Amino acid sequence: MMTPPTPRTVVSIDLKKKTWEQQLPLHNRWHPEIPAVTEVKTGELFRVEMVDFTGGAIKDDNSANDIKFFDLSTVHYLSGPIRVVDTEGKPANPGDLLAVEICNLGPLPGDEWGFTAIFDRDNGGGFLTDHFPHATKIVWYFEGIYAYSPHIPGVRFPGLTHPGIIGTAPSMELLNIWNQREAKLQEDGPESLKLCEVLHGRPLANLPSTKGCFLGKIKEGTPEWNKIAMEAARTIPGRENGGNCDIKNLSRGSKIYLPVFVEGANLSTGDMHFSQGDGEVAFCGAIEMSGFLELKCEIIRGGMKEYLTPMGPTPLHVNPIFELGLVEPRFSEWLVFEGISVDEKGRQHFLDASVAYKRAVLNAIDYLSRFGYTKEQVTWPCIVKTISYILYKS
Amino acid sequence: MMTPPTPRTVVSIDLKKKTWEQQLPLHNRWHPEIPAVTEVKTGELFRVEMVDFTGGAIKDDNSANDIKFFDLSTVHYLSGPIRVVDTEGKPANPGDLLAVEICNLGPLPGDEWGFTAIFDRDNGGGFLTDHFPHATKIVWYFEGIYAYSPHIPGVRFPGLTHPGIIGTAPSMELLNIWNQREAKLQEDGPESLKLCEVLHGRPLANLPSTKGCFLGKIKEGTPEWNKIAMEAARTIPGRENGGNCDIKNLSRGSKIYLPVFVEGANLSTGDMHFSQGDGEVAFCGAIEMSGFLELKCEIIRGGMKEYLTPMGPTPLHVNPIFELGLVEPRFSEWLVFEGISVDEKGRQHFLDASVAYKRAVLNAIDYLSRFGYTKEQVTWPCIVKTISYILYKS
Amino acid sequence: MMTPPTPRTVVSIDLKKKTWEQQLPLHNRWHPEIPAVTEVKTGELFRVEMVDFTGGAIKDDNSANDIKFFDLSTVHYLSGPIRVVDTEGKPANPGDLLAVEICNLGPLPGDEWGFTAIFDRDNGGGFLTDHFPHATKIVWYFEGIYAYSPHIPGVRFPGLTHPGIIGTAPSMELLNIWNQREAKLQEDGPESLKLCEVLHGRPLANLPSTKGCFLGKIKEGTPEWNKIAMEAARTIPGRENGGNCDIKNLSRGSKIYLPVFVEGANLSTGDMHFSQGDGEVAFCGAIEMSGFLELKCEIIRGGMKEYLTPMGPTPLHVNPIFELGLVEPRFSEWLVFEGISVDEKGRQHFLDASVAYKRAVLNAIDYLSRFGYTKEQVTWPCIVKTISYILYKS
Amino acid sequence: MMTPPTPRTVVSIDLKKKTWEQQLPLHNRWHPEIPAVTEVKTGELFRVEMVDFTGGAIKDDNSANDIKFFDLSTVHYLSGPIRVVDTEGKPANPGDLLAVEICNLGPLPGDEWGFTAIFDRDNGGGFLTDHFPHATKIVWYFEGIYAYSPHIPGVRFPGLTHPGIIGTAPSMELLNIWNQREAKLQEDGPESLKLCEVLHGRPLANLPSTKGCFLGKIKEGTPEWNKIAMEAARTIPGRENGGNCDIKNLSRGSKIYLPVFVEGANLSTGDMHFSQGDGEVAFCGAIEMSGFLELKCEIIRGGMKEYLTPMGPTPLHVNPIFELGLVEPRFSEWLVFEGISVDEKGRQHFLDASVAYKRAVLNAIDYLSRFGYTKEQVTWPCIVKTISYILYKS
Repeated sequence: MMTPPTPRTVVSIDLKKKTWEQQLPLHNRWHPEIPAVTEVKTGELFRVEMVDFTGGAIKDDNSANDIKFFDLSTVHYLSGPIRVVDTEGKPANPGDLLAVEICNLGPLPGDEWGFTAIFDRDNGGGFLTDHFPHATKIVWYFEGIYAYSPHIPGVRFPGLTHPGIIGTAPSMELLNIWNQREAKLQEDGPESLKLCEVLHGRPLANLPSTKGCFLGKIKEGTPEWNKIAMEAARTIPGRENGGNCDIKNLSRGSKIYLPVFVEGANLSTGDMHFSQGDGEVAFCGAIEMSGFLELKCEIIRGGMKEYLTPMGPTPLHVNPIFELGLVEPRFSEWLVFEGISVDEKGRQHFLDASVAYKRAVLNAIDYLSRFGYTKEQVTWPCIVKTISYILYKS
Repeated sequence: MMTPPTPRTVVSIDLKKKTWEQQLPLHNRWHPEIPAVTEVKTGELFRVEMVDFTGGAIKDDNSANDIKFFDLSTVHYLSGPIRVVDTEGKPANPGDLLAVEICNLGPLPGDEWGFTAIFDRDNGGGFLTDHFPHATKIVWYFEGIYAYSPHIPGVRFPGLTHPGIIGTAPSMELLNIWNQREAKLQEDGPESLKLCEVLHGRPLANLPSTKGCFLGKIKEGTPEWNKIAMEAARTIPGRENGGNCDIKNLSRGSKIYLPVFVEGANLSTGDMHFSQGDGEVAFCGAIEMSGFLELKCEIIRGGMKEYLTPMGPTPLHVNPIFELGLVEPRFSEWLVFEGISVDEKGRQHFLDASVAYKRAVLNAIDYLSRFGYTKEQVTWPCIVKTISYILYKS
Repeated sequence: MMTPPTPRTVVSIDLKKKTWEQQLPLHNRWHPEIPAVTEVKTGELFRVEMVDFTGGAIKDDNSANDIKFFDLSTVHYLSGPIRVVDTEGKPANPGDLLAVEICNLGPLPGDEWGFTAIFDRDNGGGFLTDHFPHATKIVWYFEGIYAYSPHIPGVRFPGLTHPGIIGTAPSMELLNIWNQREAKLQEDGPESLKLCEVLHGRPLANLPSTKGCFLGKIKEGTPEWNKIAMEAARTIPGRENGGNCDIKNLSRGSKIYLPVFVEGANLSTGDMHFSQGDGEVAFCGAIEMSGFLELKCEIIRGGMKEYLTPMGPTPLHVNPIFELGLVEPRFSEWLVFEGISVDEKGRQHFLDASVAYKRAVLNAIDYLSRFGYTKEQVTWPCIVKTISYILYKS
Repeated sequence: MMTPPTPRTVVSIDLKKKTWEQQLPLHNRWHPEIPAVTEVKTGELFRVEMVDFTGGAIKDDNSANDIKFFDLSTVHYLSGPIRVVDTEGKPANPGDLLAVEICNLGPLPGDEWGFTAIFDRDNGGGFLTDHFPHATKIVWYFEGIYAYSPHIPGVRFPGLTHPGIIGTAPSMELLNIWNQREAKLQEDGPESLKLCEVLHGRPLANLPSTKGCFLGKIKEGTPEWNKIAMEAARTIPGRENGGNCDIKNLSRGSKIYLPVFVEGANLSTGDMHFSQGDGEVAFCGAIEMSGFLELKCEIIRGGMKEYLTPMGPTPLHVNPIFELGLVEPRFSEWLVFEGISVDEKGRQHFLDASVAYKRAVLNAIDYLSRFGYTKEQVTWPCIVKTISYILYKS
């Protein structure tokens, strides 16, 4: 007989310990030199546990002060990197595709809760920060597929749990491309670009910095740590390596085809969501939680060239492909709220998807608030899921 | 017994006649003074027939010349306006909501075909005009719920047929708001705004003009016609009155809650689509067709105030609500293609949904073209429907 | 270009005429010698119109007398037979499979209504005839995908329209098998078999008879007509040729693979249903209507042997395969009512699926009747559809 | 804040111990005097672990000998009874309804495998025992929502996991009714009834017996144990208390409304299935597994009278109602195989659902076996799930 497939835990989390005390250290940056903390074989079912994206900084209580003063430089705490080798021990190589299947997932036992939040305009802000400038926090408790909140009485709904972040490590060449284009965005400044109204003093890009930086096995304060910290990419934007994709259906049974840029692929994942809508309305954009994934990898040798086409000036300008799982809650009734490219003051913008999307979301929030909720209560994206046909990615 | 509900045809189309020869004249502008051509009662099932959005200008043949030289000033040919009264004969009034249910729809008998097209960069262009600058036309034949094309061998798929345009007449006050904000957009010019790259010499807004104008029962060339033509809004953008909403699921069983701005509501509809994706990739963005709707109206007295919230400086800045029908093709497999806000040259843009969407679409087109099709063949939005979670509205 | 696929009407119904006055005569028996009334080519889209299964005997009124005294010997009026040939004019031959695709369907224009009924215990009866012995009729009006009834106020639901009967003509050899086995069932009598409680004096089988017989182009009263009438099989049971399959999802986009037993296949169809549940609770078991089908045929040469396996003593003991369409109403909420193999008197039966099913249905009817309806009102199978996963467990 | 809802484990299973060594003893009979092993409060999320229905007798290996010689008198090992009280400590009482919600479920960690089997004709048999008389076993390994089998290469599919058995304890009065009607069935013998062909020497009913009996906390061999064993009902049939319902969709998010017959309700559950079809074709009828449920109970006071109607001679002749969860795998393609009431020898039976169902299943098995599998391989019901809408028509 074959070996029964009880998943092997390759990254475990001890919820009683701080993020920096975990047995396998976490990281919150993308860099080729962050060493793998573990290794898996293709075909093997393995389990990865993860803290929530804030590393446990947000508490299960009634105060939004933790949101208001949260140090955003520390996000997102990721588990990994995980080195992937084939059954003969040969690692994934640059140019391969790494197919990662999500066989199972869920909350960590004993930690079946999550939160969603509106970040303060002075600390992160968000898509609707003009309308909702103050920090707010909503705690959710999970009962299997259902979540309910002491802060939104009367609501209970089935989630579609997924990891917000899954990606491979960039090569140094790709990392340089990222740093250069993000630095240029920052340098050129708002004048050089379409000025998105959601800017409000937010940086155009978060460039590498030692502040709040965790680099896994690289010891903090060493010269190596300092060098890597000043090169490593932040985890907020999605990029060529996958990363912060936030696809609401990326749940059980999904398969992600990630390009491989370094030997071993160095897969990292984190930012588990109990559920989210089709966009990020509140800053968090999802019900944030700790959790586990049970994964299985295959290596498609040379697959990058065969299945992904560079969409920019170099062969590295590719994007992963996501194959969605077969399981999702089955809803029969849908309302669609429209937004047009005319802002709150009545000013028209030319084909501005951001303005139109914002208007559609505000329409939905307004509609939902008629059922006895404050608008803050209905900004959480899982109700907003009813405005299903709308996407907002950056 | 009640009267059996055979739908009463209130607007019929004779396909052998030109658009201007139809018994009930068509219109292609929004204006409160375009007279109703017919009247329906609430609760009554009625049938509205319509030409395709070009009024039959595009032919079932292999040449894209008709697309290349098509006069875009004439779109979209609409049927109506239809005056709606209650069972006691009292008309819908400003401030009411008009609930329009789509009970049935389909192609006109004898005209079971449609087309999708890429408009030439020099005549309309479209979202991907840089990548696909030349006029292209693809003809589709319908077999019930299925469509197939002599121009894309091997493809046959079930559509989700819907009207692209359904809306009520604006009041003069609302029309003035539209004209002022669109004129301002035009006057301020590209410099004053985020410059969408898809502009390429296209006008920022199409202001009222007599060119290509049809105003239903208003006789062309009269002073009245001239006055209305110079005030009446074009039908391309969706606005507060509904209009060009292009919601792909707005099929059988859907219900649209439209604000009423003039006595009788003056409902118009047209621009039937056999199917479309979640966005407008090719210019047409859908498989365009003639067709019929079987509709049923209710009037919700005072419903505008009760259910819609103004999202701008006046009580008129509202948006309709769309309740989707229960019927759609059931697909089990979905791929998601990602786009990030980095353009083809590798330049990063700040949270630019248009750039990100374009990149996602190009990824999808590239992927689909690997199955033996030209990229032009797979720009048609119904294949692109597989990139379901993406929206592009203006 | 190809020819646009406007369906060619091969059987048309004039609703103002009696069943025997239709241009192409109808038939209500299966026999190889009923001549084809028309011919279609493979690949061709064609339209078949049909009367309801009673041939218009049931009226749109408030009396159930037409049900009570209806002559059951006349069912089901079928359109056809339709001879099928390939593009070179060669007919389908015995041993081929006929693949029939349902591209579209609907009510006949001007006849958008239907009925469901409980047949009287003394005239047909039905599955629950002990509980509902009296003739009842419920009229339904159609508004596109929706039906509502003056006899069941407050209910309106989307249907899943389908033909109840579609089949090919049997060969003489197969017809003989049918007649022998049904005669034997009749002769052996109830004692020889499991006695289904629903029998109640109903015949075990309806053997060939001239009473109520229609044989299409065969002129009534001729020797030929008499011979065929005394051989031809009734249409109530489904058999090897398809026939009365009553599959509720056999709607738009479905494909039926029918065995061919005679040259030309001789396809017949009828018994259109607006909607039905997963079983036949009321006698009619569906909302009965007139209607049309738009069909397309392929011939799979030699396919019978390749795809169907005889499940009885001869190569003719095969069954068709049904491939369901992609479109159905999307419901999210389901209740399951259980039935066990213990009858109303508390007596247990051994693994008796009929008893268990009856009990499940009675449970469902009882439950639904708590919402203000009489039990007769909720025997109609389309409400019963909501209990779709009825279990027959013992 | 509320208490976070980490489920409290009320019945735990140690997989290294024998069934009779578990901390909380198991039971395999229904009887009011089997004492509750634990207590839960309404609103509380609790976890129940369970062995598979055979108590671990079937092994993860290649031999079917364990199936062939399995002692069927020992099934099904159930966890519980669980006493249910409200938040004030008042127990559920006879006449109440117990609403049990399934919030989560899955395999026991370290035991992620299951099996399906054909029971030998001489030891249990099954629905198709004439066609498949020999014991067969197929082992399945689970990877999250997926299962694959070393015995059926190339197949991997997502399951819909559910408990096969969930029920409340009967009162003595109800138990007497069961024993009397099952004894009568046995006494009257085959002659008195419809003779189902699947009988083949199987007992008509399994009456109470001490053989293989487990009664939880009641010590084996005591007079009390002997008395209860000779009264307690076997777990194979579903009855008024729920029990062996085998509803394939009774997965996450489902809610079961069980009648309460004894103080505290005494809820028991077991017989977890990774997946099953719409019927029981192989004896097991499902992929059998150990597992856990996370449940939540409410008590609806007096709900039995209000929501359930007696369907037999006493107020106890009720049936539970099952509300299905929102989550299921999403399939788009369905084939329907028909069966008619004519047996393998060509003999017709009158409206015999069992014969027709058997023929439909054999058709499906034959079809599936054309893809390179033995018929034994495709009798397992989870492939058979693809023929979900099997019709039993006669």
